[in-house]
Amino acid sequence: MDRLARQALLYDFYGELLTEHQRNIYEDVVLNDYSLSEVAQDQGISRQGVHDLVKRSTRILEEYEEKLHLVEKFVAVREKVHEIHGLTQHYEEKNLNQVMSRIETLSHSILEEL
Amino acid sequence: MDRLARQALLYDFYGELLTEHQRNIYEDVVLNDYSLSEVAQDQGISRQGVHDLVKRSTRILEEYEEKLHLVEKFVAVREKVHEIHGLTQHYEEKNLNQVMSRIETLSHSILEEL
Repeated sequence: MDRLARQALLYDFYGELLTEHQRNIYEDVVLNDYSLSEVAQDQGISRQGVHDLVKRSTRILEEYEEKLHLVEKFVAVREKVHEIHGLTQHYEEKNLNQVMSRIETLSHSILEEL
Repeated sequence: MDRLARQALLYDFYGELLTEHQRNIYEDVVLNDYSLSEVAQDQGISRQGVHDLVKRSTRILEEYEEKLHLVEKFVAVREKVHEIHGLTQHYEEKNLNQVMSRIETLSHSILEEL
């Protein structure tokens, strides 16, 4: 996963634990890709202030993930469900038992993780 | 879900956000079912102190869930994966298309939620 996708996912999971001010600036810079200067002007704070705020917010989100590992868990589950869904799209009658066995294995391993 | 199962699940998700002291007492009282008096004696604090600490910890865990809804999300996913896994155990050849269609629907709806 690239850095931006990871930042978006961390924000999706833990963003509500930031303050509204942190969320606004994080969204503008990281998710909506405004420049630091644009956001600085818009918020009436310095460019360095915006930079520090984003860095601090990223650190907070990372710290939640270090403790809870929910994004990691979620990514693993999503990959397996993707594979299950893919299998339902492309199975052939002759491979049926194999397909069902694979879906069984995948769904079982998800239940072990959740 | 009964109250104890919910408390265990909230703790499983967000317990790492409590202090070690809160975790120890929460585990003893809620998960290991020791009495308040036993834990009070063990920890060298009052029975009321143990009660308040558990109540406060429960409130903290509930507040995280109110903000993040991750337990709610995971419970919904888990139920659907349970159903998928059940279907792989009990399908019959004649119902195959229906079974695959149901697994497709379930896996798709999980991907929409995750």
